[in-house]
Amino acid sequence: MAYMKPQIDILTLGVRDLGAARHFYVDGLAWEPVLDVPGEVVFIQVGYGLLLSLYGVEDLASEAGNIYRGQQPAGISLGHVVADETTVTEILDRAVASGGSLVAPAQRRSWGGVSGYFADPDGYRWEVAYNPGFNVAPDGKVSIQAVEG
Amino acid sequence: MAYMKPQIDILTLGVRDLGAARHFYVDGLAWEPVLDVPGEVVFIQVGYGLLLSLYGVEDLASEAGNIYRGQQPAGISLGHVVADETTVTEILDRAVASGGSLVAPAQRRSWGGVSGYFADPDGYRWEVAYNPGFNVAPDGKVSIQAVEG
Repeated sequence: MAYMKPQIDILTLGVRDLGAARHFYVDGLAWEPVLDVPGEVVFIQVGYGLLLSLYGVEDLASEAGNIYRGQQPAGISLGHVVADETTVTEILDRAVASGGSLVAPAQRRSWGGVSGYFADPDGYRWEVAYNPGFNVAPDGKVSIQAVEG
Repeated sequence: MAYMKPQIDILTLGVRDLGAARHFYVDGLAWEPVLDVPGEVVFIQVGYGLLLSLYGVEDLASEAGNIYRGQQPAGISLGHVVADETTVTEILDRAVASGGSLVAPAQRRSWGGVSGYFADPDGYRWEVAYNPGFNVAPDGKVSIQAVEG
């Protein structure tokens, strides 16, 4: 039986309105698509070997089974790590100016950093974080630890 | 106003039972945690500079606002790309043997490859895909295209 490597290549967000999602990420945040098929799918590169896919939630459900398609956003969060505390607030401002909504302003967290949350047009949460315990080595290996605040 | 780079560093899945999620990913799939804090959080590296975080959905909701905590799984999918068609089925088998459930067996897709879906204990969908149009360059840059089947 094959070993499944610990590896995510694509994160697909099922969206209610592809045009609105595209407007937020591509026009608002100015993220250039790798592949943009109007009315069907938008792929954006969001890391080494990693794509974010915006895809109609009805289309996704037809492949991926009985998934949630209601009004409340998914119980997940996409983490975006930045270099300092000031940048956390600046990026939350940018997201709001792009059509996102502020969920939680920047605040000190128990793990020793500062973070805040915004929501995209479908309610998907992004946590923007300054985290002194988060480090990526040159080979891509991540270390993470709680730092006493 | 700061530019937000197109970058995901951490994908947090809000889970109903951290022990069950840990059992599936750590014991079942044999994915070694980067940081494992019993009863609180499990971090697993799933790409270059990328962590998967398993975190109680109630804890996540207390930070990330009014997110969905019901019984239907989120409208997202995590894509895992493999080298050939046979491996798709082998990995679906492995996931089921680890305590996941089969959502859709391996099948030919309109974009020119083969994929199937399994669900983790919280219902989060993983698409296991052989995709001849998906390529990662040595610098990490991804290209993706539809291939005529």
